Amino acid sequence: MRQSRYSLGARLHREPRGAVRFTRTLTQVFAGHPARAAVSLFLLVISVFTILLASPWVSAERMPMTLTDAALTATSAVTVTGLTSQDPEFYSFAGQVVLLAAIQTGGLGIVTLGAWLTLLVSRRLSLRTRLLSTESLGVSKLGEVPALLLTVFVVTLTIEALLTLVMLPIFVQALGFGKGLFHALFYSVSAFSNAGFVLDPNSLDHPVVMTTINIGVFAGALGFPVVYMLYRMIFHKARMNLHTRITLEMTAILLIGGALLLAIFEWHNPATLGTMSTGDKLHNAIFASGMTRSGGFNTYDVTAQTDQTLLVTSVLMFIGGGSGSTAGGIKVTTLAVLLLAIVTEIRGEEHMRVHRRELPVGLIRVAVAVLMAGSVVVLTAVVLLTWVTRADLATTTFEVLSAFGTVGLSTGLTASAPDAGKWILLAVMYIGRVGTITFAAGLTIRQQQTLYRFPTERPIIG
Amino acid sequence: MRQSRYSLGARLHREPRGAVRFTRTLTQVFAGHPARAAVSLFLLVISVFTILLASPWVSAERMPMTLTDAALTATSAVTVTGLTSQDPEFYSFAGQVVLLAAIQTGGLGIVTLGAWLTLLVSRRLSLRTRLLSTESLGVSKLGEVPALLLTVFVVTLTIEALLTLVMLPIFVQALGFGKGLFHALFYSVSAFSNAGFVLDPNSLDHPVVMTTINIGVFAGALGFPVVYMLYRMIFHKARMNLHTRITLEMTAILLIGGALLLAIFEWHNPATLGTMSTGDKLHNAIFASGMTRSGGFNTYDVTAQTDQTLLVTSVLMFIGGGSGSTAGGIKVTTLAVLLLAIVTEIRGEEHMRVHRRELPVGLIRVAVAVLMAGSVVVLTAVVLLTWVTRADLATTTFEVLSAFGTVGLSTGLTASAPDAGKWILLAVMYIGRVGTITFAAGLTIRQQQTLYRFPTERPIIG
Ligand SMILES: [K+]
Ligand SMILES: [K+]
Repeated sequence: MRQSRYSLGARLHREPRGAVRFTRTLTQVFAGHPARAAVSLFLLVISVFTILLASPWVSAERMPMTLTDAALTATSAVTVTGLTSQDPEFYSFAGQVVLLAAIQTGGLGIVTLGAWLTLLVSRRLSLRTRLLSTESLGVSKLGEVPALLLTVFVVTLTIEALLTLVMLPIFVQALGFGKGLFHALFYSVSAFSNAGFVLDPNSLDHPVVMTTINIGVFAGALGFPVVYMLYRMIFHKARMNLHTRITLEMTAILLIGGALLLAIFEWHNPATLGTMSTGDKLHNAIFASGMTRSGGFNTYDVTAQTDQTLLVTSVLMFIGGGSGSTAGGIKVTTLAVLLLAIVTEIRGEEHMRVHRRELPVGLIRVAVAVLMAGSVVVLTAVVLLTWVTRADLATTTFEVLSAFGTVGLSTGLTASAPDAGKWILLAVMYIGRVGTITFAAGLTIRQQQTLYRFPTERPIIG
Repeated sequence: MRQSRYSLGARLHREPRGAVRFTRTLTQVFAGHPARAAVSLFLLVISVFTILLASPWVSAERMPMTLTDAALTATSAVTVTGLTSQDPEFYSFAGQVVLLAAIQTGGLGIVTLGAWLTLLVSRRLSLRTRLLSTESLGVSKLGEVPALLLTVFVVTLTIEALLTLVMLPIFVQALGFGKGLFHALFYSVSAFSNAGFVLDPNSLDHPVVMTTINIGVFAGALGFPVVYMLYRMIFHKARMNLHTRITLEMTAILLIGGALLLAIFEWHNPATLGTMSTGDKLHNAIFASGMTRSGGFNTYDVTAQTDQTLLVTSVLMFIGGGSGSTAGGIKVTTLAVLLLAIVTEIRGEEHMRVHRRELPVGLIRVAVAVLMAGSVVVLTAVVLLTWVTRADLATTTFEVLSAFGTVGLSTGLTASAPDAGKWILLAVMYIGRVGTITFAAGLTIRQQQTLYRFPTERPIIG
């Protein structure tokens, strides 16, 4: 090998205790300032709701859930997943109120956490670089956390109020004013939070309810940064930032592409779309496609779908929704950056560019880290869950992806799994929800200047 | 949004006809000089062996295969996969010779192609940069293609001769000299080419044969660049390059990690390791772990394995072996670069470094491109194959991954699939073999200087 003129310099700057240093920094990513607070707060909230949901008055029959079921349901509600071991009929009115409170707390908590982390990342980056990074959130003017909280709350509650108003007449006509109002409120919160919890399995039969829920889930899955950008574009003539443009484009592609594939694979399936009119087939395919990327409501039985649909659904669940949203998964911008890497390489370009903007050099590595970490979590959980439940690989993978993407579509495995299986799914929901968002932000905040360089060498790839 | 001082400049340099330009460059990647030659040559070789294998004299019973089966077998042999619809007993001695010729041609072809593409990449890169890239192949002194060909042939035939000599006494004792010599030769070629074809299902029962095949597969899966580097280290005191170090490390980690997981999941399974002695359990676990990353020989029934093993095997098959080797998959260096992205981000470093070397900035994007392209091929093939065969998702995914990784472990689906399914698997083998290697090299060769820049903007990830 040629002696490099860098070698001596590199030798003098020995990296201090490699493995020790790596372990320490790994701990810092998860136990550092922003991530630790998020991890602890969500655990606390889930614990409180577990205790509430284990109480007898939550049940219509005054027969309380086991502690495992309560922990599963509390995690599912706070992480806005919707996987549950209880039928909707289980709950008393008080139980339904607790569930609503858990979903609303979780939904608002996630959005606030996302906005807060984005703000921290923006600030940290703008201290060192001339990036337009503060534009990503579109809240560079807000500055302080209380103001941020207020904005998130006002935006969320306004949209939920609008959704409630649209569904109110239908539910009031069917259930009377008091119960109708509660149902309209519950469904609007469940939809905008992408929670996927229902009070009655047949409630989605009404086309207006179905469409309203679809719009609520769609808006919720875009994420607060995008919703707030759209608000500023409409009312303050702001120009669309890159994050919003990419999120909208990917969401549209995945929604329409997913709907087309689902329509093709279910068109003649009598248990799903087969018996519907052509219009209803298309409407239900669009609904189902949107729900896979983390709404989790369903108008037909998941297990009745073809294997092709199960696979497409699995992929869409893993991708999830927008960053800083109540949707789960690795997020559509992560996928966009990964796909852009291919486009850049095929074009043979030196820098990743899209829409007349250049992406920061390290961004692709954050995307890869999120993808690989997500894959490891899912694969590990599938191995453990097949071992515990003895269910087949396809069913287990579907259920784990549904938990990781906090989607809530179920093959029934969550309800039938032994306690150990429920705790695995509970852990996956928690990691899918709190882990992904804090991991990516934690990584980005850590980026630092290089003090010394090594000579470059290129291994062969592929 | 802040007006950037770059905007006007960017506007003046409009990118020429985006979609048209992209399509043109995509075509260039696959139809350009090195890739086109490889794609055509392999198609030609497969066609010739298809015609030979469809002849009646190939069959012991003089009952020729169908053209589909012949095409499947020819593709399987030339791509050194080992998935086949025929039992070993089907072949006449002439048929066995044709099979051996197809495997040897395919194996040598792949190694030569890999070495040639690496040389092209190295030259192209070294014209523009001060990279140590020529060190990757370790053949910077060779220069010309005929000399490269000669080196590949001499190295390959020497190793195959050594493997043949070790197994010769055992086969001669069992089958007599003539037949024993042919068997020893066949197994050594099948092993070093990572082909996984056998002449007799019980031939792996002898521990010496099993160990020799294991070593042959291991050496073959490292790849010519690594084998040649090791030769230069031993005989010319050369220093190990980065590619060799990474390949050896990842291979060791995957071999031992895989063996540990397989041992855990099969320890008490009576249909696989359950009835063996502890020593045999460990030996067979190491053997099975190595075979998943593309040898494809098996000592027990694949379908008898637990679901956990099937999943671990699936992941290992997708990863595959070393670059420029007869193994398939996305390659261990690709995985290493992806994992290194996570390490770099957790450390918060600006550049990807390993073993006191820095990786080129664009390398992670090539790795992402290979990963994503591989995933798309596998997912598409699984959707098509479940549709055609009506087999369940887990079985189909396993068989497609086995074809993509040119592994050859089978659930039996290849043999039982209708013709359409066989053509799908045949296409996946071809893409997994020729596609991956030319795609990555084609991308790398295309890298060019940037003429204009855009302002940087950072979307939110994760
Ligand atoms: K959900
Ligand atoms: K093979």
